[in-house]
Amino acid sequence: MPAPMQTPAQADQRGLFVSFEGPEGAGKTTQIELLARRLRAAGQVVHTTREPGGTPLGEQLRAVLLDPSASDRDPVIEALLMMAGRRDHLQQVIRPRLATGAVVITDRYVDSTYAYQGYGSGVDRQWIAVTMGLVTDGLLPALTVLLDLDPVVGLERKYRLFEGDETASSFERRALAYHRRVRDGFRELARTNPERWLVLDATQPVAQVGERIWERLEPLVQALATPERAESVNDSAGA
Amino acid sequence: MPAPMQTPAQADQRGLFVSFEGPEGAGKTTQIELLARRLRAAGQVVHTTREPGGTPLGEQLRAVLLDPSASDRDPVIEALLMMAGRRDHLQQVIRPRLATGAVVITDRYVDSTYAYQGYGSGVDRQWIAVTMGLVTDGLLPALTVLLDLDPVVGLERKYRLFEGDETASSFERRALAYHRRVRDGFRELARTNPERWLVLDATQPVAQVGERIWERLEPLVQALATPERAESVNDSAGA
Repeated sequence: MPAPMQTPAQADQRGLFVSFEGPEGAGKTTQIELLARRLRAAGQVVHTTREPGGTPLGEQLRAVLLDPSASDRDPVIEALLMMAGRRDHLQQVIRPRLATGAVVITDRYVDSTYAYQGYGSGVDRQWIAVTMGLVTDGLLPALTVLLDLDPVVGLERKYRLFEGDETASSFERRALAYHRRVRDGFRELARTNPERWLVLDATQPVAQVGERIWERLEPLVQALATPERAESVNDSAGA
Repeated sequence: MPAPMQTPAQADQRGLFVSFEGPEGAGKTTQIELLARRLRAAGQVVHTTREPGGTPLGEQLRAVLLDPSASDRDPVIEALLMMAGRRDHLQQVIRPRLATGAVVITDRYVDSTYAYQGYGSGVDRQWIAVTMGLVTDGLLPALTVLLDLDPVVGLERKYRLFEGDETASSFERRALAYHRRVRDGFRELARTNPERWLVLDATQPVAQVGERIWERLEPLVQALATPERAESVNDSAGA
């Protein structure tokens, strides 16, 4: 077992950092949009983003990583590219936004690397943990929401006819056994760190899932001061 | 100090693996061409390659890494991208060619990451060593030639008017102090592992430098069986 970093996101940050994890088709995009709307209605400045991606370098790496023709990409290479994109994302987007007091919600973060490359593909999890510490300087979300879903249901939801679907990404094309290991990995990560994780059954109705997320997040939001508007974000991102 | 991997390249390989290291302007390209010609004249099958680069992914990453506008790229991101490209290069090019008994000569390999990101930019060298072991599965060259050069001379050789030269890469644009640390790093790496390294003064005449390389390499070449022609290289590279 890796020793996940325990440094709370809030130690040197003013904002609130939230990540969503789970397979394709679990509804991350929908729940992130719902949550962002609710937070904005509550007066918060919200920035939503995703990994891989989120910066020009990240989007270049995303194109490389999700290329459907690269479904047998070596998992160590995948992990290295994911982490390179993550560090850029942290430096250019996440930290500067948090510094202004914003709520930053990311679709995938460190736990996806543990789940997909570590549990799914067998990359050494101790190495992932050490490298992650270097890459993130210990920044973890205050809350990570796992939208848990049987991979069979997830893949069917997103691709009714998965076989032969030319739009499926390199990750979606992998064998079911791989997706089961990924799911078990996410659940194990959540079990070992329950104060950071909220595990929800993604087959429940959208509104109900959203309500559970809000219940858990509301105290953290109320602990935030109302942030000033963050016009200077791009200046600080250039450092 | 990192503990560089000691597994010899020849352990499970039939060919001969040689790397060239040193700053821009030290004459690596010229010496690699000279050496390749001499090896071919001696009946060897030779494959020359370079890092970053050498594969489609590697060339994509090379473009990202050498982009002149990215001269302040974070060194951890640099190291991660270099290592991702290196693993692809090893899997797609270096190992398959060595397996056919060829001589593979690469312009830069693992030691550039120690020198540039480690010594030059201060990335933790212990982490580089651990990650390098994972990335290369311990494959090191039988010989590494360092073309040693005062960075002032090297930069002047390549760019007579360096200031304002729009073609200089992100690495070449860095401060002289950085390039001095890189040089000292290469020399320290060579000192701690003299049986793998040959350090040559790059200001000596081209023919003389070439002769010294040949003297050192010739016994290793003679130890090679004459390889069969390697028509099947591309098949094995697709694995």
